[in-house]
Amino acid sequence: MNEKIKLSKPYLLSADDLTIDDINNIFVKTHFFMDNHKTGVKYDDLKSTIVSLAFFEDSTRTKLSFELAAKRLSADCFSFQAKTSSLSKGESVLDTLKTIEAMGVGIFIIRHNCSGVPVFLQGNTNGMIINAGDGQHEHPTQALLDAFTLHKHFGDLKGKKVCIIGDILHSRVARSNMTLLNTLGVDVSICSPGTLLPYDMNAWNVGIIDTVDEAVEWADVLLVLRLQRERMESGLLPSIREFSNYYSITIEHLRRKPELMLMHPGPVNYGIELDYSISKLPNVLIETQVTHGVFVRMALLSLLSGYAN
Amino acid sequence: MNEKIKLSKPYLLSADDLTIDDINNIFVKTHFFMDNHKTGVKYDDLKSTIVSLAFFEDSTRTKLSFELAAKRLSADCFSFQAKTSSLSKGESVLDTLKTIEAMGVGIFIIRHNCSGVPVFLQGNTNGMIINAGDGQHEHPTQALLDAFTLHKHFGDLKGKKVCIIGDILHSRVARSNMTLLNTLGVDVSICSPGTLLPYDMNAWNVGIIDTVDEAVEWADVLLVLRLQRERMESGLLPSIREFSNYYSITIEHLRRKPELMLMHPGPVNYGIELDYSISKLPNVLIETQVTHGVFVRMALLSLLSGYAN
Amino acid sequence: MNEKIKLSKPYLLSADDLTIDDINNIFVKTHFFMDNHKTGVKYDDLKSTIVSLAFFEDSTRTKLSFELAAKRLSADCFSFQAKTSSLSKGESVLDTLKTIEAMGVGIFIIRHNCSGVPVFLQGNTNGMIINAGDGQHEHPTQALLDAFTLHKHFGDLKGKKVCIIGDILHSRVARSNMTLLNTLGVDVSICSPGTLLPYDMNAWNVGIIDTVDEAVEWADVLLVLRLQRERMESGLLPSIREFSNYYSITIEHLRRKPELMLMHPGPVNYGIELDYSISKLPNVLIETQVTHGVFVRMALLSLLSGYAN
Repeated sequence: MNEKIKLSKPYLLSADDLTIDDINNIFVKTHFFMDNHKTGVKYDDLKSTIVSLAFFEDSTRTKLSFELAAKRLSADCFSFQAKTSSLSKGESVLDTLKTIEAMGVGIFIIRHNCSGVPVFLQGNTNGMIINAGDGQHEHPTQALLDAFTLHKHFGDLKGKKVCIIGDILHSRVARSNMTLLNTLGVDVSICSPGTLLPYDMNAWNVGIIDTVDEAVEWADVLLVLRLQRERMESGLLPSIREFSNYYSITIEHLRRKPELMLMHPGPVNYGIELDYSISKLPNVLIETQVTHGVFVRMALLSLLSGYAN
Repeated sequence: MNEKIKLSKPYLLSADDLTIDDINNIFVKTHFFMDNHKTGVKYDDLKSTIVSLAFFEDSTRTKLSFELAAKRLSADCFSFQAKTSSLSKGESVLDTLKTIEAMGVGIFIIRHNCSGVPVFLQGNTNGMIINAGDGQHEHPTQALLDAFTLHKHFGDLKGKKVCIIGDILHSRVARSNMTLLNTLGVDVSICSPGTLLPYDMNAWNVGIIDTVDEAVEWADVLLVLRLQRERMESGLLPSIREFSNYYSITIEHLRRKPELMLMHPGPVNYGIELDYSISKLPNVLIETQVTHGVFVRMALLSLLSGYAN
Repeated sequence: MNEKIKLSKPYLLSADDLTIDDINNIFVKTHFFMDNHKTGVKYDDLKSTIVSLAFFEDSTRTKLSFELAAKRLSADCFSFQAKTSSLSKGESVLDTLKTIEAMGVGIFIIRHNCSGVPVFLQGNTNGMIINAGDGQHEHPTQALLDAFTLHKHFGDLKGKKVCIIGDILHSRVARSNMTLLNTLGVDVSICSPGTLLPYDMNAWNVGIIDTVDEAVEWADVLLVLRLQRERMESGLLPSIREFSNYYSITIEHLRRKPELMLMHPGPVNYGIELDYSISKLPNVLIETQVTHGVFVRMALLSLLSGYAN
């Protein structure tokens, strides 16, 4: 185990935990898993490791992606989808986690609707925490799979131009991507209604683009966000229709610039942030992102496995 | 793989997809799996195939039966029980399915409360769809296990007389059985209150019997349906008690004709369509149907596996 | 299989099913599984046995503990967390169980919010029932893991003094512990507000202690119960704060007597029955209990496996 390549930190809470070497090591390993797929072979990286998928917020795709990845590395997976209601009975997330840890679980893949929960848990347990999305904070494995998808398409990413479009304020995907793409030397801009920009915009090393037309002209890649309708409470947008008029990507945008690539973390609100008509264009990478997600998570777990109990 | 016996279609959406050869091949394979059981041996038919049990409607028994079958063929099974609520967030069933498919899932076992969903999905994905019950439309594997149970009891089914009793209108079990039993040359009749008959009755090649007494006299087998109380909205029945007075099967019916067999897809509403007192009579095949269900589904999945990605 | 050590009864419904020999056999086997752990080796005791985790009441920790135990013995595990709502559609627990049994399931691990359900089911099925908690009746595996934790700490338990503190009335943990500890010759007392004592207190071979201070002085071990706030309906306690003032265990209690051990079945209501400040003291065994739980359940399942179908 000692000679194995490891990541610089024994957990993944934020895209900020990953150095450029870490990211490159993950990409090399991801290529390895992709190239050697289709044989039905399982790997032993997580043999005799127990992985708990602790999703305190509903999820189908991210949970399935992690589960497929962990099982291909021979982990024993146990998932529970906790409701906030059972926690209101007086059991804290930390207490739940320490109990599960006492049963022998070594890796916790956590999704929680409160920002900061994975960081808090990592500071208070001996297990390894992987953040699968916390509130409006971070979703680092989404950023990793997005970056891998770009790397697979473009090769070296230094100086490439990515514009993130839509609801930046509520998006953990945007936060993790801004950090990870900066680490990789990508030139990042954002394009969003002013009310959906974070208050601390100056702290981010990103440009601001006003219109989708300008974004199309400037960028090599558009990373379009899901409009978090369920989080949109009072008055941030005049109407979803108005948002759609100004910020939706249409087939005309993509026809105008055939080399422009489009990504989206899914699930897409077709008719709001994307026209349905674009879903089959060759420059749309949405399903490719999903496919890459499983291999990227395999690579991450494999490189973290040296630290696991 | 090329020499393997395959079904004529690379999916199962309706009982109508199965030719008489298909059905006989499934029965032969089912016998094989039953005769060789109890050894703890697993088969390799679905090794390295990922099966998703996508149940958009609650189910315990059908889901467990498919899961047992798929795992005995060495499939990797992933189940999710989706709520309509998460779909109202703007994600379509098709989008969910294509996402899961992009992760490498090859077989989708689908239950959905809307008729036609499996047909729609098969037309829009590359995966293999198996219909585990869609709305009031079809439940083809239930018809297969019912027919296998009859075949095991009677041998050749040609000319055997089956009367389907109860709520035909809302029953996907009735629809799939009428089709499959017709394919096998069985003589099918139905016995139901007029308000619980489908409007397109003439399109079905079945006779109509007015009373349970006549049904008992005529039939070799009674296939009694569950009264779908939760689907029975306004005014189709004067009362459940009146339905029960006229259409319930009692111990007297079965004592009168000891060679008459009784089947029910379960779960039974005892006291409504069946008297509880009959549950232990030797001519009641309800538990046998459940036992056969696992082996029939193994046979189906095995014969479809040649098509799976 | 015939030479294997078996328990005296082919199921576990109550702590009363276990003789002193049974308990000692379980402890010996638990030691074996603990001492040989960390190798990633799985045992074959339940190979080709299908285990159904039928939890009709929410549970994270007990369910996970049983699942880990069963899988380490190579069982095929299928869990379902049934809602009362689906049962209101007219399907009884017994009908559900017999259906699952007809699919080949041999062992049922049952949790139900009604006292007596496991006993009823064992009388009406051929499967093996293990009670994982029924209403306010029994939770025998919790008592086993508690007793094992004591045995590991003290060696022979004969004459040791255990005081159970808190809401005895609603506690299945208390009932199972009083029985099991009596079998082992432990001297048991209880300490509780009068309104939270069972009506049949005289039937139990236990002493009554009035105050926590006296309990601390008398006991070798305090077994503190969770205050079942959700079961506490009208008027049993003036207020939770008053309960806490009189019955909460504080850091002063434990510092006063360093050899006094403290156990709790979890999840703890910190601030109610226990001060949070005590959670890291060396005489608190709560996490040790959880760790032991998995091995005790492995031992139980292993010793019952000779009876399983």
